[in-house]
Amino acid sequence: MADTVGFVGLGIMGSGMAANLLRAGYEVVVFNRTPARAEPLVALGARAVATPAEVAVACPVVLVCVSDTPDVREVVLGPQGVADGAAAGSLVVDCSTIDPAGAREVASELAARGVAFVDAPVSGGSEGAARGTLSVMVGGAEADVARARPYLEAVGTTITHLGPVGAGQTCKLVNQVLVVGTMLAVSEALLLAQAGGLDPAVAIQAVAGGAGGSWMLANRGPQVVARDFRPGFTIDLQQKDLRLVLGAADDLGVPLPATALVFQLYRTLQARGLGGEGNHALVRALEALADREVGGPPA
Amino acid sequence: MADTVGFVGLGIMGSGMAANLLRAGYEVVVFNRTPARAEPLVALGARAVATPAEVAVACPVVLVCVSDTPDVREVVLGPQGVADGAAAGSLVVDCSTIDPAGAREVASELAARGVAFVDAPVSGGSEGAARGTLSVMVGGAEADVARARPYLEAVGTTITHLGPVGAGQTCKLVNQVLVVGTMLAVSEALLLAQAGGLDPAVAIQAVAGGAGGSWMLANRGPQVVARDFRPGFTIDLQQKDLRLVLGAADDLGVPLPATALVFQLYRTLQARGLGGEGNHALVRALEALADREVGGPPA
Amino acid sequence: MADTVGFVGLGIMGSGMAANLLRAGYEVVVFNRTPARAEPLVALGARAVATPAEVAVACPVVLVCVSDTPDVREVVLGPQGVADGAAAGSLVVDCSTIDPAGAREVASELAARGVAFVDAPVSGGSEGAARGTLSVMVGGAEADVARARPYLEAVGTTITHLGPVGAGQTCKLVNQVLVVGTMLAVSEALLLAQAGGLDPAVAIQAVAGGAGGSWMLANRGPQVVARDFRPGFTIDLQQKDLRLVLGAADDLGVPLPATALVFQLYRTLQARGLGGEGNHALVRALEALADREVGGPPA
Amino acid sequence: MADTVGFVGLGIMGSGMAANLLRAGYEVVVFNRTPARAEPLVALGARAVATPAEVAVACPVVLVCVSDTPDVREVVLGPQGVADGAAAGSLVVDCSTIDPAGAREVASELAARGVAFVDAPVSGGSEGAARGTLSVMVGGAEADVARARPYLEAVGTTITHLGPVGAGQTCKLVNQVLVVGTMLAVSEALLLAQAGGLDPAVAIQAVAGGAGGSWMLANRGPQVVARDFRPGFTIDLQQKDLRLVLGAADDLGVPLPATALVFQLYRTLQARGLGGEGNHALVRALEALADREVGGPPA
Repeated sequence: MADTVGFVGLGIMGSGMAANLLRAGYEVVVFNRTPARAEPLVALGARAVATPAEVAVACPVVLVCVSDTPDVREVVLGPQGVADGAAAGSLVVDCSTIDPAGAREVASELAARGVAFVDAPVSGGSEGAARGTLSVMVGGAEADVARARPYLEAVGTTITHLGPVGAGQTCKLVNQVLVVGTMLAVSEALLLAQAGGLDPAVAIQAVAGGAGGSWMLANRGPQVVARDFRPGFTIDLQQKDLRLVLGAADDLGVPLPATALVFQLYRTLQARGLGGEGNHALVRALEALADREVGGPPA
Repeated sequence: MADTVGFVGLGIMGSGMAANLLRAGYEVVVFNRTPARAEPLVALGARAVATPAEVAVACPVVLVCVSDTPDVREVVLGPQGVADGAAAGSLVVDCSTIDPAGAREVASELAARGVAFVDAPVSGGSEGAARGTLSVMVGGAEADVARARPYLEAVGTTITHLGPVGAGQTCKLVNQVLVVGTMLAVSEALLLAQAGGLDPAVAIQAVAGGAGGSWMLANRGPQVVARDFRPGFTIDLQQKDLRLVLGAADDLGVPLPATALVFQLYRTLQARGLGGEGNHALVRALEALADREVGGPPA
Repeated sequence: MADTVGFVGLGIMGSGMAANLLRAGYEVVVFNRTPARAEPLVALGARAVATPAEVAVACPVVLVCVSDTPDVREVVLGPQGVADGAAAGSLVVDCSTIDPAGAREVASELAARGVAFVDAPVSGGSEGAARGTLSVMVGGAEADVARARPYLEAVGTTITHLGPVGAGQTCKLVNQVLVVGTMLAVSEALLLAQAGGLDPAVAIQAVAGGAGGSWMLANRGPQVVARDFRPGFTIDLQQKDLRLVLGAADDLGVPLPATALVFQLYRTLQARGLGGEGNHALVRALEALADREVGGPPA
Repeated sequence: MADTVGFVGLGIMGSGMAANLLRAGYEVVVFNRTPARAEPLVALGARAVATPAEVAVACPVVLVCVSDTPDVREVVLGPQGVADGAAAGSLVVDCSTIDPAGAREVASELAARGVAFVDAPVSGGSEGAARGTLSVMVGGAEADVARARPYLEAVGTTITHLGPVGAGQTCKLVNQVLVVGTMLAVSEALLLAQAGGLDPAVAIQAVAGGAGGSWMLANRGPQVVARDFRPGFTIDLQQKDLRLVLGAADDLGVPLPATALVFQLYRTLQARGLGGEGNHALVRALEALADREVGGPPA
């Protein structure tokens, strides 16, 4: 008989992850607030139930992937939540991105009921979720992480254990600092290239292989040049994560001047109704300042 | 009979490049202000002469690799300079990093004497120069660039033609914006990781393969964690190049807030006598602010 | 018979304000969580009661001056709060600094009970509170503000009505942006003066009367030079207010790059245990970066 | 017989200053590159001559007020310059704003000819020059400054001696840091006020008398609200001075993050053709980012 695992939260990320668990041969019991979102997974062989508690009754290990700290608290600790159905000795693996302190609080409340907790936020976007190539940053006790690992290996290719509960979330915040800071560098570089009379697409090719190279330059640079701002990851979600970053930095006494600047710049794009564009639309803020545009159709 | 090429300026970069021209089978005529620096190349088969003009008399194509705009002007246009020896129809290929306007001025003065000019600044550091794996960013007329290309292919692996004279230098400035901006992102990320209780080395592994990844993170991140600030490229040289960047941005009306911030931060390190450390020592400025250090010997 | 007014919250600011209401001839009924803090006012003629509700029973107008949004909610809307004792037609005048949205929520809940609300945050520090020279920034309906004005004139010299409920708080946030941004300018200026070999005290005299002059330069500049960082307003309180500022700016889509930078800098001082120093200790963050100090005992 | 003094450079500032010297009873010998600009002063009683050297022949003390370091060098040390006519024991008082190192170099070259030098840059704008209410920041030897003082008192009200040659210029740079940093604070504050629904003019009144108050807020704030960007001091001139500031900070190892940010922002306004507007048009850069405008005609 196949191993059974629960999955709560079938958004863009969760749907892909749950599908990969099915593909890996697990029996998957799913719950989503909007039941219609469970249908494609049921078609793939999942069993849908009516509450997170029912997921926990059926499965000793439950993965969660929702939006924010309050959502995690609700589906895990709220009425009919995972904790209501979980037997002592169960394990909750939270793949949402929330603040590290929030993760520690949920873990502590679950521990009081004999339920273990691992935080396991992911990066790699909807494509990574669909392909099972996510990076998973894991925080928790050694034994709990070992127990979670087979499920995480079904959804990701890089599974890194970073420390106790909360450490996975902290590492996810570190990742977000890199993402937006690198995108700021790419934005300034492309603007200088354009203003200096270069073809920005050629300039990217010239430098992408060297010390200035980055995933953002190689992947998002050409999209900026093509004025393709469809989201891999939206500005609105990026800002949600940057609030967590800036909050954690505030708690820890760490100065993040570039990250803070990006946060200010994204905000102006949200105010202009561009919060649904990809995080590489950051360049638009500098463009507004400079009154010029990188790329576009060939002259 | 082998093709003959001239090389003026045998610093760390120039020595490696001239050696690779020899290895590629060219006869190389060299000049360096400090003659002793030519000796290792003479041992490899180069012929040393007493002035840049003599290099030009002997070679229809002369590569130049010196420090700054005034140095280029001196060895090319000064007394006993390349221009004094160059026959009409000769070509000067300047691999120094100087400001784009300076490159255009030198080209214009050479053109008046019937001598062609290509700007071809490189990136990849002393290692890239030694191994012949530099990236070369080229500006100049199509025919001149075609003529320079074989020599450049002997010293680099990525040779990109970006536009008319000066375009190579502009692209080099774009590269520097990426280098320092990415390093700023890496610095903030490592500081947050350390303050958040992560092992920064493990955090780097967890995120380096994703959207926050960069050459700087993969190559300089571990050096920061090991407190190894030996220079690939020194802060002093980086600041010299950032002055060119900020000057060009000033001419072009482009705002570069992150680059400007890095320039301010490196300055404080220079004032503390750290200008000879590598450009990844940028993290030290944030560390001074935060009164904490990333990495170091295990606790 | 003298007019009676209530006062809830006898911290440093509230004590001074309540004392000035007594001096102006009002009968003042007071409440403070720590009853001992009411004693000096009782000695001046105030009547102390046991709950905010009792204050409201005794007085048709109640001024409130506590720390933060949750404190205002507790003393106004919580058990035994002002609202519990207030008759329909009463007026609450909140002199605390809280977020504008919080002020509007409290007003709305009071309105449902027939109680009017005015937000009236103050600036001028403990000295201004003691001397009755505060600036008061008022938000509320015209009639309510008119009713509050006599009491506010007993505690301040500049009473400005800025718009509907919440407008007073928004103006207070505007004031905080000015305070910290000006202090950042003063910090950079003093550091440049010191590094440039000037006597910073003489430099302040030279420029304070001109276009670069400000309250901060004239009043806090000499304190910085004397290394006197005793608080007029602490960094910890300043950061509390800056969180409100940055939150409001986030809601409104306004970029505040200098304010955001100051917030990052103050944080590093808090991490170093300096949160109890005055907000002019901002200069210490730049000093840490520059590894030099403005002022100090004469050489 | 009245004391005779020379004046070289009759731009907006110099014309006003020379006129005040006449009003104070001095005989004034003037030179300006464009002779027509001398005519109004001749009408007031000045004597115009054909070269700076002739001014120096006629006057033992010569004030200079031109645009930039090269201009000072030209009129003082160039052909037919002041130095060509000056007798040993003469004094040159330079009221231009130039870099401190430039001032020290000119002083040193003059000293070799037995001519003394004082740097005495001014602030207060064309109005201050016309009214004789300038602030004068003076660097030089005690005796030279004493000798210059009577002339400076004819043009300004605050004459401050800051140290040896160059100290006046350094103080002028300190003043510029204050001017632009304060204007950045005012810009952020006004934008927040407007976005928050306040009448910015009323908000200015509410806060101008407190800890957030400044000359810029009181004088330029209302102009911003009225969309009056006529220059007291143009962005182009401000940028010229900020280049001196940032260059000096670079030499001294001082970080000026806010000043550097303003320099980046002004640049975008210059690129948009607004370099002739007043330095309070800085707010336009933040407005471009935020896609909203402070003030304007009443709605």
